[in-house]
Amino acid sequence: MRPYDIILKKRNGGKLSKEEIEYMIMGYVNGEIPDYQMAALLMAIYFKHMDDSERAILTEIMAHSGDVIDLSPIKGKKVDKHSTGGVGDKTTLVVAPLVASLGIPVAKMSGRALGHTGGTIDKLESIPGFKTSLSLKKFFENVNKYGIAIAGQTANLAPADKKIYALRDATATVDEISLIAASIMSKKLAGGADAFVLDVKVGSGAFMKTLEDAKTLAQAMVGIAKAHSKEAVAVLTNMDEPLGIFVGNSLEVLEAINTLKGNGEQKFVELCITLASWMCYLAGLGDIDKCKNMVEDSLYSGKALEKFKDLVVAQGGNPEVVDNPENILPISNQIIHFKSNKDGYISKIDTEKVGIACNYLGAGRTKKEDKIDHSVGFKILKKLGDRVNKDEPIVEMYVNEKSNIEYALKLLNEAYQISDDIPKNTQIIIDIVK
Amino acid sequence: MRPYDIILKKRNGGKLSKEEIEYMIMGYVNGEIPDYQMAALLMAIYFKHMDDSERAILTEIMAHSGDVIDLSPIKGKKVDKHSTGGVGDKTTLVVAPLVASLGIPVAKMSGRALGHTGGTIDKLESIPGFKTSLSLKKFFENVNKYGIAIAGQTANLAPADKKIYALRDATATVDEISLIAASIMSKKLAGGADAFVLDVKVGSGAFMKTLEDAKTLAQAMVGIAKAHSKEAVAVLTNMDEPLGIFVGNSLEVLEAINTLKGNGEQKFVELCITLASWMCYLAGLGDIDKCKNMVEDSLYSGKALEKFKDLVVAQGGNPEVVDNPENILPISNQIIHFKSNKDGYISKIDTEKVGIACNYLGAGRTKKEDKIDHSVGFKILKKLGDRVNKDEPIVEMYVNEKSNIEYALKLLNEAYQISDDIPKNTQIIIDIVK
Repeated sequence: MRPYDIILKKRNGGKLSKEEIEYMIMGYVNGEIPDYQMAALLMAIYFKHMDDSERAILTEIMAHSGDVIDLSPIKGKKVDKHSTGGVGDKTTLVVAPLVASLGIPVAKMSGRALGHTGGTIDKLESIPGFKTSLSLKKFFENVNKYGIAIAGQTANLAPADKKIYALRDATATVDEISLIAASIMSKKLAGGADAFVLDVKVGSGAFMKTLEDAKTLAQAMVGIAKAHSKEAVAVLTNMDEPLGIFVGNSLEVLEAINTLKGNGEQKFVELCITLASWMCYLAGLGDIDKCKNMVEDSLYSGKALEKFKDLVVAQGGNPEVVDNPENILPISNQIIHFKSNKDGYISKIDTEKVGIACNYLGAGRTKKEDKIDHSVGFKILKKLGDRVNKDEPIVEMYVNEKSNIEYALKLLNEAYQISDDIPKNTQIIIDIVK
Repeated sequence: MRPYDIILKKRNGGKLSKEEIEYMIMGYVNGEIPDYQMAALLMAIYFKHMDDSERAILTEIMAHSGDVIDLSPIKGKKVDKHSTGGVGDKTTLVVAPLVASLGIPVAKMSGRALGHTGGTIDKLESIPGFKTSLSLKKFFENVNKYGIAIAGQTANLAPADKKIYALRDATATVDEISLIAASIMSKKLAGGADAFVLDVKVGSGAFMKTLEDAKTLAQAMVGIAKAHSKEAVAVLTNMDEPLGIFVGNSLEVLEAINTLKGNGEQKFVELCITLASWMCYLAGLGDIDKCKNMVEDSLYSGKALEKFKDLVVAQGGNPEVVDNPENILPISNQIIHFKSNKDGYISKIDTEKVGIACNYLGAGRTKKEDKIDHSVGFKILKKLGDRVNKDEPIVEMYVNEKSNIEYALKLLNEAYQISDDIPKNTQIIIDIVK
């Protein structure tokens, strides 16, 4: 087998065999195949794509390129949730304790902030004392004892994906459905769960800007899961505005706690209930309506909030955060308002720009080494369709000394469109792909 | 400017600016742009192509990436000839003295054998004493004194093309018209001539297997020449069978000398006259019919043969080769016949395989360092449409001890198709592109 012939085959629209995909991927990971040949293959895949079976094989090979977590020490059916990333997406902080409170073991390895989107691990680290770096032994112990653990990815999951992703990022080959789906699902499969609920974001703050692309990606990921005899449900959800009310680290933990207390913003609550219900459904707790009732009961009875407290305690955080979040969480007290420059309705939000603006305050990273400021962020006072008057605040900016306030304001100004027409009301849940 | 954005632009079908092409090519040559980004760009160009102006710019930048020969020390209009490469293509050995005998200065830098095709320099080195490595000073002196010099490429011509060609060769991005045309024409422009006759081969022994592809390439090359205010004529010529009667190094020199003596094979003679006539036309000697008459007169009067003798003398070769080629040239006396295994007509020849078979005798190189055996080769006894009987010789193989005769015979057997139908007669000159 020669790399040249494999590149040529894909370039000419051929279907790669399992042996060919394995030869290229593992050869690249081992350093036997040079990056220029992998770059040429990736660009050929960008143009000629992969079919369902090629995708499944690619995913499997990347999933097995490093550690594959064995979750068998944990009893019961393990259901994982994945979000393709959005702005203000603190869903895991609510959904994980919700389903754990219903007896589904939550053994979640989460990521850090990436690009314009935040990361669950960074958010949890806002809680004083909270440890996200757990040994695999401690991780399993916590799941078996408390029914829940959320840790940073310490195992060497899918190193092939990591190496290939870096190359895609440098060669303009990121946005191809097969490559995106295989990248996400290889890490999920290596994580060892039995079933997956996939939150596929669509809109101005998502990686998939159009419904068509998001649906194609959702179908690809569900297809890959099924090819590996794993169940999966993808929920297509709206990301044309920030999710909920807060964007930032401490501020999103605050919002998650308020939501678990029954005081969540309506669309965000609907999203959390939907995702949690599908997780319960995949875990075998009953039909989807029954699951929804159980989830709502757990949310409004305070059971889910108790489970969140268990999580905080189990991982060394200060449990007072639950009763008194505003005082315990580091939240800046320097507030600056982004105000409307005219009367009208919020007709469009470039949500990606809102996410980037938040990074300029210090909430995200440009380089891997950058430190995050957990205290900064946005309170979104006005969302799509809301009426504003000239000089009325649209966003409360929680800032610090290092925040690039000027640039953040410039981006917010570009992000928000205000017009005389009331925009169509948008649903948070757009579609379900099973 | 970032390489990423340039790759993305081309990938999305955009047109690259001069600044962008220059940034990528020179950055790659200087080692500032890594090969994986260049590989991704080349694959994007493979799929999205380049338009006329992008091609012209790419050619210009590659042509100026190294030395550009200044031919002004040579008086008169300098017309260069280029062949895209074939099997048995000893045309330069006849055409160069033909046009030189008519007063057109021939300052030719030629290449060595590449893949299944031979090289003029290797062929000339069959002549005992003949030196192909000339200083630029000696090269110019010879052209001014004798009207002709043929040397190996000593100057650093188009190093960008050399580096990019090696990468294309490893990433399945060789066969894209813009890249092929720019590669050829960058070296031609760096060579410094005023006008070009391009012999574009079509058929089983050529790099372009179909007329459509060959014509597209011819138009691209003529377009690039015109964009640089240089005249060019492309002649599309048949390569569905070996050119002339002999394939090999000494054997092709022998055939060239016989042709200059007026004893050439009919189609080969027609090709030489056509190419020489267009060179005279571009040099301004008159209309094409007048040029043809002059060329025929030079060929059949022995003037061209005299000029060939001048060339041999000027570059240190034994001039007796002209009068007594069979004795002076190293030609093997071990002959093996490749015979027909049935009665019929030669209906098809995979000419590329004939070229490769000849390399297995020792006439070509697999690696750059390989030594060539000038004494081996083929005499083609039967060509397309010829009648053969079972056990009748088709090819005389001139071999040596190191020749892989078995494999050469296997390839010849695969190359020749014999059937009951007489194939359509083929013309050597297929089309002219101006």
